[in-house]
Amino acid sequence: MSAPNRNVLWGRAIVSELVRSGVESVVVSPGSRSTPLVTAVTEHDDLHVHSVLDERSAAYFALGRARRTGEVTPLICTSGTATANYHPAVIEADRGRVPLLLLTADRPPELRDSGANQTVDQEKLYGDAARWYKDLPEPEADGRKLRSLRTDVARALAEATGTPSGPVHLNCPFRKPLEPTPVPDDVPADLEPLAAAGRGGDRPFVRTTAGVPQLDRADLQRLAEALTVDRGLIVAGPADPPGVDPQAVTALAHATGFPIVADPLSGLRFGGHTRVTTTVGGYDGYLDPRVTDDWPAPEAVLRIGASPTSKRLRKYLARVDARTFVVDPAGEWREAEFTASDLVVADPSRLAARLAEVVRGGGDAGWRDRWAAADRTHREVVADATGDGAGGYFEGAILADVADLAPEPSTVVVSNSNPVRDADRYMPPTDAGYTVLGNRGASGIDGVVSTALGAGSATTDHLTLVIGDLAYYHDGNGLLSALRCGVAATIVLIDNDGGGIFHRLPIESFDPPFTESFRTPHGIDFEPTGALYGLDYTAVDDRASFRDAYADSVASDGTDVIEVRTDGEASQRTRERLVEATVAELVE
Amino acid sequence: MSAPNRNVLWGRAIVSELVRSGVESVVVSPGSRSTPLVTAVTEHDDLHVHSVLDERSAAYFALGRARRTGEVTPLICTSGTATANYHPAVIEADRGRVPLLLLTADRPPELRDSGANQTVDQEKLYGDAARWYKDLPEPEADGRKLRSLRTDVARALAEATGTPSGPVHLNCPFRKPLEPTPVPDDVPADLEPLAAAGRGGDRPFVRTTAGVPQLDRADLQRLAEALTVDRGLIVAGPADPPGVDPQAVTALAHATGFPIVADPLSGLRFGGHTRVTTTVGGYDGYLDPRVTDDWPAPEAVLRIGASPTSKRLRKYLARVDARTFVVDPAGEWREAEFTASDLVVADPSRLAARLAEVVRGGGDAGWRDRWAAADRTHREVVADATGDGAGGYFEGAILADVADLAPEPSTVVVSNSNPVRDADRYMPPTDAGYTVLGNRGASGIDGVVSTALGAGSATTDHLTLVIGDLAYYHDGNGLLSALRCGVAATIVLIDNDGGGIFHRLPIESFDPPFTESFRTPHGIDFEPTGALYGLDYTAVDDRASFRDAYADSVASDGTDVIEVRTDGEASQRTRERLVEATVAELVE
Repeated sequence: MSAPNRNVLWGRAIVSELVRSGVESVVVSPGSRSTPLVTAVTEHDDLHVHSVLDERSAAYFALGRARRTGEVTPLICTSGTATANYHPAVIEADRGRVPLLLLTADRPPELRDSGANQTVDQEKLYGDAARWYKDLPEPEADGRKLRSLRTDVARALAEATGTPSGPVHLNCPFRKPLEPTPVPDDVPADLEPLAAAGRGGDRPFVRTTAGVPQLDRADLQRLAEALTVDRGLIVAGPADPPGVDPQAVTALAHATGFPIVADPLSGLRFGGHTRVTTTVGGYDGYLDPRVTDDWPAPEAVLRIGASPTSKRLRKYLARVDARTFVVDPAGEWREAEFTASDLVVADPSRLAARLAEVVRGGGDAGWRDRWAAADRTHREVVADATGDGAGGYFEGAILADVADLAPEPSTVVVSNSNPVRDADRYMPPTDAGYTVLGNRGASGIDGVVSTALGAGSATTDHLTLVIGDLAYYHDGNGLLSALRCGVAATIVLIDNDGGGIFHRLPIESFDPPFTESFRTPHGIDFEPTGALYGLDYTAVDDRASFRDAYADSVASDGTDVIEVRTDGEASQRTRERLVEATVAELVE
Repeated sequence: MSAPNRNVLWGRAIVSELVRSGVESVVVSPGSRSTPLVTAVTEHDDLHVHSVLDERSAAYFALGRARRTGEVTPLICTSGTATANYHPAVIEADRGRVPLLLLTADRPPELRDSGANQTVDQEKLYGDAARWYKDLPEPEADGRKLRSLRTDVARALAEATGTPSGPVHLNCPFRKPLEPTPVPDDVPADLEPLAAAGRGGDRPFVRTTAGVPQLDRADLQRLAEALTVDRGLIVAGPADPPGVDPQAVTALAHATGFPIVADPLSGLRFGGHTRVTTTVGGYDGYLDPRVTDDWPAPEAVLRIGASPTSKRLRKYLARVDARTFVVDPAGEWREAEFTASDLVVADPSRLAARLAEVVRGGGDAGWRDRWAAADRTHREVVADATGDGAGGYFEGAILADVADLAPEPSTVVVSNSNPVRDADRYMPPTDAGYTVLGNRGASGIDGVVSTALGAGSATTDHLTLVIGDLAYYHDGNGLLSALRCGVAATIVLIDNDGGGIFHRLPIESFDPPFTESFRTPHGIDFEPTGALYGLDYTAVDDRASFRDAYADSVASDGTDVIEVRTDGEASQRTRERLVEATVAELVE
């Protein structure tokens, strides 16, 4: 292990530990201070480098990969404001429990707070959003320091993928020379081999073996008894990466006889288990008090994952006030109506599998049928009102069409704002091999393009992104990754010229300021983004054209943008009409 | 003062205090949680609202305005990752001492850390970069609370424009209803008038009158004596907003007999004072040891402003090791070679004016002439080698052409990376009415378009932005402000397909990884950005065409982009040749 200088040695030690802990890709943004990291990364044959020029997009790209895989794609950037551009994705990673490792280059300690150029305070830059922060020591070819470095890198990956998973920040100071210029006597020839080269046989320097919280037998038994009731629900919110085990939840659904109320991001809306369970997905379209006031209340609710996307579902659960168990492996609270009485700190998949062995309920078939029937009614009302020839084409139908037409296997990323809500309501549970992802940790619209392309870069699935115009604009820079990182996708751009979501809110009836300051119509024609980023660009404005364009895109290579021009206000009125129609059916 | 609910009352109190403290504009990004602030802003007749969709660009737009004016343009955004998008500009504002007021909407306290949607930890989000942070209390129609609110808003503005000026963060929690829906009994009719409506006569609730540090007479005298020498320099680095007083510095230059070494961002490179002082600007092209080793060393150096952009100047000052006084009103250290021995905590303009009255040096005319001659030689060498017919057109000549052709008055914003360095070397001191600005606090390339358009929005000057392709790409979203905020500009896009700056660095000789991971050629044709953002777009690739296009743009309305296609490597070689040629002239 010879190196021309200490920085090269240091950079290589970091990168070799990343690779030995299983890292296969890194996302690099250009800059100078990070040179020792970047050169080490590029000289490593087993590492794939994604080069993303805008650090905000870079971080969301890495986040998208980690969301899809549950594994870390480290990020490397230079010092200065570059590091702050990671911050939005770091917050999403914190709230969404997505593993992320931020390697930010920094100036050496003596230049901090000295007026030196591009030197900012990077210490604890992401505050409490980082699971772990360490300011690495100054590089030196010293045995103990290198062993500490190798330990830190391996620990950082373990922390990022721990419980809860999330962002970890290693700040990496470097002093010139940053490039591989030989510095005589900088690296002693007799450096301790273990420190210099790490462990043999591609083993990481330290390996973390972490347990997950499991209930003891008596607690499990008590919980099982509480779930041995006629009417209960398994409510699955957005899943933490790498997701829950559908088999375990299926087994629990069978043992309890509970329907699975599956958020589109739960990992349980789609898949083979829907054939053998009562899995419902249309609830956001019918859980109205006029409907549910006539229903018997559930006796027990088991909640897994994050808080569900559907406000109507959350309000229903608060209304019925059943005994509610919030299951969270990290012991955090994820139920903001504050009606739940029990927090269960356990891994949801393992808990479900173990509970399935001890619960002997079976539940009330009428209760399951009620949910299944409501879901079916919802689907029929929507299909009748918006199907072929019904003339009711609206934004929600785009999600239904994607659910209908996406090939298998597919990864479908839905933007925040309306697309995720339309996915919730209009993508019915099916046995399709779909992985549906969204950024519901902090629900921002700022990095959705990059999240999608990052997710796509980590899978051979077909990739569909459904995104509104504001989110498309916000992370327009992210489109460059289709080309530069070689990710093919079908991007469905729902363009209603501004923030259609605001039509859902009471501020709609106050205009001004509604139009100018909330809906913010911008009038941008996005077609030039096709030429700018080397994408095929098609615009459609009716359902048949959209379905044709989508099918064409699926059948072709490369990345296509299908702009669907919609009327945000009319679409919102259609959503409201469909709820009314479904409610009317159900209360008859 | 009646209001339909407490949130409306609260939002109006905030906005009325902003206006009474002199705020004329705010920058708003769309969102829901910020509704009480946004509605209050839009209903206020005396307030101009700039709507900027991308919060990263929004913050840099506000920063650009404040850089140009020294005054605050408050920012308003919704909760969640939106707030983190402000972070890059907050860091630039901290290091660059640019006043900024961030009003981030937040969810109410009970929803924090509860799993509620779009609820993130916004407390002290910007860490030590904020001059002052306060989590505002929950809105309530209570006299004392409202008086505290009005006090806080007025104080926030005073803190932002204090010494040193910089970012201030008020986190603003709101509970529904967010819109102006009437809530019976929410606002008592007998609310204390002072709390409800503030002071009469458009007076702010509290007014801060802040002194600035001034030396006492004896200290001033000692400093004056130290500056009474034959050979000294006034080194003016990038100025803190709102800039230094050229008259005061001119008076000091006359009293001491020192040349003014004027950074392009110092506010002293251009203006009438250059006619009556020895103001030099070409130093980055000739302060080579081969030249200066034959020069007598200066005996005293007075440094004002931030650390100069020119590395060659900084290294020269370190080499000569004169007695160096770093003047800083905030008492911070801004000299990263650590050769200075004296920190003078005083306002630089007032100090210069007072020193001018007591210093009776006059200095050595030969010393001044030496600097003036070197500067002249530098200019002649550059002109000869790159002028008409000389065939040496390169990136630096674009800055020289802008200096030559910009109308008066002009605001010229130069991007980081090469443009600011080329401005330093190739924009010679003249008496032109130019205000040259750049983000040298943290020297990022991430918000330069918005900074420029923000600066332009605050002045009737002609606006020129000189920017490289990576910075143009990075803040492409910022271009939308030309249209939406009605800012006209001439944008000179120097497109060398990647990071030309890296050709300055030693990593250039290591390829790989140089090209792929440092220069990062992206191959983007930026012409579609014209259609995307409604800008006129022209591409040129020779000097005459550039000069014609620039003159055309100056003569026309609206915003034009002039893409100048250059060869980054060849331009760097030209820069190096010009230094060698100048050095050769000077050592003869």
